[in-house]
Amino acid sequence: MYLKYFYDTSLAQASYMVGCQATGEAAVIDPSRNIEDYLQIAREQGFRITGAFETHIHADFVSGVTELARRTGATIYYSTEGAENGGYEWDQDLPLHGVTHGEEIYIGNIKLRALHTPGHTPEHVSYELTDGAAADRPMGVFTGDFVFVGDVGRPDLLEKSVGVKNSADKGARQMFESLQQFKKYGDYMQIWPGHGAGSSCGKALGAVPTSTVGYERMYNPAFQPTEEQAFVDFLLDGQSEPPTYFAKMKEVNKQAMTPLSEIPAAVEMQGTGDDVAALAEQNHTMVVDTRSAAAFAMGSIPGTINLPYPGSFAEWMGRLADYEADIYLIAEPHQFPELSRILTGMGMDRLKGFFATSIVASTSNLRTYVNETPKQVEERRRNQDVQILDVRYQDEWDQSHVPDAVHVSLQQLPTRTDELSTEQPVAVHCASGKRSAIAASILQNHGFDVINVEGGFMKWKKEQLETTS
Amino acid sequence: MYLKYFYDTSLAQASYMVGCQATGEAAVIDPSRNIEDYLQIAREQGFRITGAFETHIHADFVSGVTELARRTGATIYYSTEGAENGGYEWDQDLPLHGVTHGEEIYIGNIKLRALHTPGHTPEHVSYELTDGAAADRPMGVFTGDFVFVGDVGRPDLLEKSVGVKNSADKGARQMFESLQQFKKYGDYMQIWPGHGAGSSCGKALGAVPTSTVGYERMYNPAFQPTEEQAFVDFLLDGQSEPPTYFAKMKEVNKQAMTPLSEIPAAVEMQGTGDDVAALAEQNHTMVVDTRSAAAFAMGSIPGTINLPYPGSFAEWMGRLADYEADIYLIAEPHQFPELSRILTGMGMDRLKGFFATSIVASTSNLRTYVNETPKQVEERRRNQDVQILDVRYQDEWDQSHVPDAVHVSLQQLPTRTDELSTEQPVAVHCASGKRSAIAASILQNHGFDVINVEGGFMKWKKEQLETTS
Amino acid sequence: MYLKYFYDTSLAQASYMVGCQATGEAAVIDPSRNIEDYLQIAREQGFRITGAFETHIHADFVSGVTELARRTGATIYYSTEGAENGGYEWDQDLPLHGVTHGEEIYIGNIKLRALHTPGHTPEHVSYELTDGAAADRPMGVFTGDFVFVGDVGRPDLLEKSVGVKNSADKGARQMFESLQQFKKYGDYMQIWPGHGAGSSCGKALGAVPTSTVGYERMYNPAFQPTEEQAFVDFLLDGQSEPPTYFAKMKEVNKQAMTPLSEIPAAVEMQGTGDDVAALAEQNHTMVVDTRSAAAFAMGSIPGTINLPYPGSFAEWMGRLADYEADIYLIAEPHQFPELSRILTGMGMDRLKGFFATSIVASTSNLRTYVNETPKQVEERRRNQDVQILDVRYQDEWDQSHVPDAVHVSLQQLPTRTDELSTEQPVAVHCASGKRSAIAASILQNHGFDVINVEGGFMKWKKEQLETTS
Amino acid sequence: MYLKYFYDTSLAQASYMVGCQATGEAAVIDPSRNIEDYLQIAREQGFRITGAFETHIHADFVSGVTELARRTGATIYYSTEGAENGGYEWDQDLPLHGVTHGEEIYIGNIKLRALHTPGHTPEHVSYELTDGAAADRPMGVFTGDFVFVGDVGRPDLLEKSVGVKNSADKGARQMFESLQQFKKYGDYMQIWPGHGAGSSCGKALGAVPTSTVGYERMYNPAFQPTEEQAFVDFLLDGQSEPPTYFAKMKEVNKQAMTPLSEIPAAVEMQGTGDDVAALAEQNHTMVVDTRSAAAFAMGSIPGTINLPYPGSFAEWMGRLADYEADIYLIAEPHQFPELSRILTGMGMDRLKGFFATSIVASTSNLRTYVNETPKQVEERRRNQDVQILDVRYQDEWDQSHVPDAVHVSLQQLPTRTDELSTEQPVAVHCASGKRSAIAASILQNHGFDVINVEGGFMKWKKEQLETTS
Repeated sequence: MYLKYFYDTSLAQASYMVGCQATGEAAVIDPSRNIEDYLQIAREQGFRITGAFETHIHADFVSGVTELARRTGATIYYSTEGAENGGYEWDQDLPLHGVTHGEEIYIGNIKLRALHTPGHTPEHVSYELTDGAAADRPMGVFTGDFVFVGDVGRPDLLEKSVGVKNSADKGARQMFESLQQFKKYGDYMQIWPGHGAGSSCGKALGAVPTSTVGYERMYNPAFQPTEEQAFVDFLLDGQSEPPTYFAKMKEVNKQAMTPLSEIPAAVEMQGTGDDVAALAEQNHTMVVDTRSAAAFAMGSIPGTINLPYPGSFAEWMGRLADYEADIYLIAEPHQFPELSRILTGMGMDRLKGFFATSIVASTSNLRTYVNETPKQVEERRRNQDVQILDVRYQDEWDQSHVPDAVHVSLQQLPTRTDELSTEQPVAVHCASGKRSAIAASILQNHGFDVINVEGGFMKWKKEQLETTS
Repeated sequence: MYLKYFYDTSLAQASYMVGCQATGEAAVIDPSRNIEDYLQIAREQGFRITGAFETHIHADFVSGVTELARRTGATIYYSTEGAENGGYEWDQDLPLHGVTHGEEIYIGNIKLRALHTPGHTPEHVSYELTDGAAADRPMGVFTGDFVFVGDVGRPDLLEKSVGVKNSADKGARQMFESLQQFKKYGDYMQIWPGHGAGSSCGKALGAVPTSTVGYERMYNPAFQPTEEQAFVDFLLDGQSEPPTYFAKMKEVNKQAMTPLSEIPAAVEMQGTGDDVAALAEQNHTMVVDTRSAAAFAMGSIPGTINLPYPGSFAEWMGRLADYEADIYLIAEPHQFPELSRILTGMGMDRLKGFFATSIVASTSNLRTYVNETPKQVEERRRNQDVQILDVRYQDEWDQSHVPDAVHVSLQQLPTRTDELSTEQPVAVHCASGKRSAIAASILQNHGFDVINVEGGFMKWKKEQLETTS
Repeated sequence: MYLKYFYDTSLAQASYMVGCQATGEAAVIDPSRNIEDYLQIAREQGFRITGAFETHIHADFVSGVTELARRTGATIYYSTEGAENGGYEWDQDLPLHGVTHGEEIYIGNIKLRALHTPGHTPEHVSYELTDGAAADRPMGVFTGDFVFVGDVGRPDLLEKSVGVKNSADKGARQMFESLQQFKKYGDYMQIWPGHGAGSSCGKALGAVPTSTVGYERMYNPAFQPTEEQAFVDFLLDGQSEPPTYFAKMKEVNKQAMTPLSEIPAAVEMQGTGDDVAALAEQNHTMVVDTRSAAAFAMGSIPGTINLPYPGSFAEWMGRLADYEADIYLIAEPHQFPELSRILTGMGMDRLKGFFATSIVASTSNLRTYVNETPKQVEERRRNQDVQILDVRYQDEWDQSHVPDAVHVSLQQLPTRTDELSTEQPVAVHCASGKRSAIAASILQNHGFDVINVEGGFMKWKKEQLETTS
Repeated sequence: MYLKYFYDTSLAQASYMVGCQATGEAAVIDPSRNIEDYLQIAREQGFRITGAFETHIHADFVSGVTELARRTGATIYYSTEGAENGGYEWDQDLPLHGVTHGEEIYIGNIKLRALHTPGHTPEHVSYELTDGAAADRPMGVFTGDFVFVGDVGRPDLLEKSVGVKNSADKGARQMFESLQQFKKYGDYMQIWPGHGAGSSCGKALGAVPTSTVGYERMYNPAFQPTEEQAFVDFLLDGQSEPPTYFAKMKEVNKQAMTPLSEIPAAVEMQGTGDDVAALAEQNHTMVVDTRSAAAFAMGSIPGTINLPYPGSFAEWMGRLADYEADIYLIAEPHQFPELSRILTGMGMDRLKGFFATSIVASTSNLRTYVNETPKQVEERRRNQDVQILDVRYQDEWDQSHVPDAVHVSLQQLPTRTDELSTEQPVAVHCASGKRSAIAASILQNHGFDVINVEGGFMKWKKEQLETTS
């Protein structure tokens, strides 16, 4: 048996290829849409990909099962549990195979047994792997978004992203039951999860690729509660606001996604910074400047949003996504292919073009904003009218915040700038300065005079302590 | 003044960028559709591309003027001479500027003067370049398909490719007149032509990038005849059959070509050789195997055509093109990008996918054909029924050929295989063996038992001489 | 904690990076010499590499610990068990830390505990990993060449490669004891081994990256014997001849290997095939043609050896290595970097240059050999004098072979061609045809008239059965 | 005949390949050391490179003739005029052919006739090209550093770079004589020069690749004087200080340069910014930070010099070169290969390693300097002690300068910082701000408190005018 782990860092997403050397067949579990890596490995190893297995309807990336099926002829294996046809609405032309709890699929001599493990989503299945040529007992489980290293899948996405009422509580209770079944496995079993650290599909995923049932039994916090209600309370507590694009992903992954072979490749464009400013003014157009916050502050094209790559780009494209908008990126030319790949993986197929960063210099009226320390901002407050805007998440705000600050979480800022006065400058902060830099660009686009607070709330507290003591 | 020469080897096509350092403006003359190189140089040199100049309606590659205009905002300069609006049927949204004979266009301090130079086509203009900041006399001429190094543009394409009656003779006479005007230039003038060796736009283009009026005056055969009729006779003699795709190119270049940003990128596909054979059987589908003729002979997938890369690929895609067909290529993975680029330049936008060459091995019923020397084939003729098929051009056939051979030029073979008997094997030859290898694959697709004649007619003659002497 | 798996397919070699996000420190376990991947990941993740851990003196690849230490300042952790200073003879300028059994090293909050696990080699240590920030019990063990997935390290390399008498038996007994200790671990513990399928460091390594103590306890054949002698007999049985280069690797890995920054990069060369033939004739020069066996058979440059890439290249460079020879490769230009990387990893620092495969065509006296089926060869035997040469390993020969064949294993062929008569053609076979193609090129270099037996011994037996039945 | 133009932008250096399709032979004129491009074109066109022609002993880049000869077997053609063996001191193992005035060399049917054209250097030859298969008169001349587009080679390098007394005047007179001969050519002849705009081998080279004798006769200023003395005065006037590395280049190009196959490839290194600072403190070590001046000003590692890439890097490496020093570069990882290539071309073979720019952030005591406008600096002068340092060339200083400023040209600054007081801050300026940014880093390394004057002398003058008027 051949087994290979794949990991997409920008999406924090794991996928797996299993292959049977005896028959030359292989399958991919939870493929992402950028399937080039799977094709290359299959080519090099001499495998034909005959199976594309999906654990559940993903919310955080475009599933690659349809892409794989169309380009290799592989059969798509998907869950029919938990809802009518598992909730899927497939294109009928695809080679489909809906699986049910306990069903065994063979890829050559390799056995993949589907286990219905609802909780993260109602239809979620895991696939138990047995190396049929060498063993009669399973080696491990592809757990998808059921069990992670150090965490379990969050059950509240359907409710928060798609608005399915009471589904969070119901999911948490299903998760409890799924875990009770899972705990019956022997310690030795390997766990191959669907995500790693940085994913928004759980609270506290580890940055370790694989684990075992025995280790998680000891250290995974979600494995500790033995009472259902205690587990539910634990699980629903502290789950953050899901990214905006999760709703869109749920929708597209129910059905076959547009084949990559039908999506035009984004191209480089040239012109002046003023052309870009005019473009950014159009409706349903998003021009994202991927330069560092420091460079952006010193001069940016009116109308552009600053999502520095790699720091903030992928996460905040997801959280600020507008799927109806044409997207243009300002970036270093050598980064164009990788940026394009990231957006493809998130289903942002309306990426229309790139501009090299050098275009910024050719803008007639560049904007700037200043960076100031909390101390400097407090000084301003004493001397003049200035608004303090906190763009952290609700739970961060609830824990502690600057007195008299206004709170609008960054994710909601684009549609809630009317809560601020345009007559005063806005001093915007987050926890450390990363999110406030993004907010600064959004505020500039809405006509505000902006001050970005260096070091954010963490520095603010530290300075205050120093002042007090 | 900044001047840079670009050359696309696969299309034998030259283009030029001129830029004015004082104003930062630049223009490209006769850009090809793959404009990435122009954009990169402009970026590196700090130029804004404001002009896209076209000498005439190209027949042999997709003009890049619309691509440049759309992606940089450059104005398209095109000829309005020789026909209603020069024969163009533009999309009205483009920034267009039709030029007339003698008109002067400035790119910063650089002067480009349009000269109507019909002959190759009725609307053809050349652009005379003057470095305005440093000189009052011109430095050279961008001659497009008017004057080449060692040749002039052929006047018979409209008649042969598009069927405009008597246009060859008329064009030849216009060419004579255009040349008389051109000869008035001083010897010192540089000539920057639109094509180099390998192009089908002339008879005998040199493999030297640039020349001068004085040198061509001495050595270019087309500059020698001083009587119109002698010139016309000289020019129309020996022009070969134009590639099939020239007709299509004429058509698309009259109007704005599909922007690259709307053409999906071709993707790798996998499966078995049998899947590929099934694909090749579909209507309006062309599966091209780019492996060497030797490898193809030893085993190929039924239904595929063999156009070895780089040897025959670009030229014969152009000569066997079917613009209604979906195209799939069998190639080495590292060659996918370059192959895709070549087809884009020829307007073959229906490239749908790639298969790695390793897929051939997974075919259940591989075809083979044998290579035999002329001697072996003559031996066969004595012993059994075998047809000899000559796939060279008409003029090669007319000059000399194997007795009792059948003649169908390769370009016409796909539609004329019914002139052969399927009851006998076909021994196919060309001049040296390159074209017959392509023919062998086409014949196999039509059910013939094929023998490829090694070394072709050149070897045949040589062997005969040896036998006779 | 951050954990990442690295795998070098050409060497079947695994390495690992662990990093502590809290302190920004990271370590690599058993790095290979091509450390670019480690540097890139460290850069992207924001880690400083402070530790380079080595499990033992490797025999099959150049250790990257000195390369890492020199280029990042990392401390080298190595075993001082089993021999004076573990058998190492380090350059004193390096930041060194010799570890002893039970010693605990911290990389930030991560604990790596050294365990002396002799058997494969006397000094071998494993490193037990504990995620100190989150757990008080270990998560798994980096087992190096001690425990593999489905196998354990072979104990006979020192004896067979380096000639240490009786060390195979002694190593096998140490391995038994090491395993008894290892079996005390709980089932849940992960195993992160030093090699995967294809490595010559064990008999039957799996193609699965990681395993667990519980799973290996059930299915690893080496875990089954409970008596020492039975284990020793099991372990020493069927271990194949080690590659020649293992001896060299043992030698260089004892001390600091030449830094890559002192090894010149191999360059492309041009000329004629005759120049290459002249080069190949020189003493201490090895010219390797990496084309397919089929292409090589049809025409090769005198004096060259055929090691097709990727099929046979890495393995047989290792088995036919001459560390005193300058190496030249004939290959496709796009493969130069990868081929160079493979040789670097095997310590073959005398790679001097590349020739593009197209150079073969410019050779004045190309050699050829024929491929024949076993049936055709048997026919030859009946009609004329032909020698049958079997180049399989000793154990394959012992099991069964063609009557009256001569046996010289491929690895020994270069120095034992005098056992064959030059007066007769040699029909050479192996099991399937892969090794005999290499042998054919070696035989051609020694002046033999060669026939390569298609399909090898497997086809021979099959044809015989068909004939008999 | 095949002719191809090559141009290396970073060195502003042109080279040429001519090839005879009939015989398959090709030659390169004035190859640079990075010969990969020549090898690739030869491979693609099916040429064997049999000649490496050198016009003179280059001062501004490492000649590639020895590299070509060693890797392809090509014969080196070089001048034996003007000095004993032309001044060359070759390694005797090379295939050498010294040419004399009027000698004709054939590459297949192509004739290259050597013309002794001293002036730039005593041994300088040009090569007149005749396409023997098609013409009896020459097509053009490879003029090396004799005639450029819009300029001629400077005659003062030997005197200024190598200290050959009175050679400037002598060279100017030889140049006059060489030009008189050259002017005898017909207008039509093409000129293929050795350099383009940006080269320090002339005063005012154009950015046009090729020209003609007729055009230069009209517009090249050096073609205008008809009296020797007027020409000499014209030619010696306004030639700037040659780069430091020219002296080294003259030295190495007299003999065979170290083959690239003996120069190790520079590697990436990691560690902390403090490690880099320690490295920079060592003798004979040069650590160059290639980031933008803006980024460098905001924080740099002590001891590093700022040569922004691409803006200042190549030129100022050449002007500040220390050939005894080990070189380390701080750069973006994707730029490592190109930076390495540039230094190779300039013979800076002691490039030892690269650091990613992210290393700067891990420095414990980052340095900063401020940028101030001339107005702000003048204000400082009124209020406090501040020194004004002008780092422009002598001729720029002579023309006009800030009153009471100190003048040390940038090229000499590293050895003349003792002319400044360490007790006052230094406000450094050049013409526009590019050179002063480099100077700022050098001054920081010598312990000065630095202010970089934004916009330089040009802004200073402009502000003064505005103030006055």
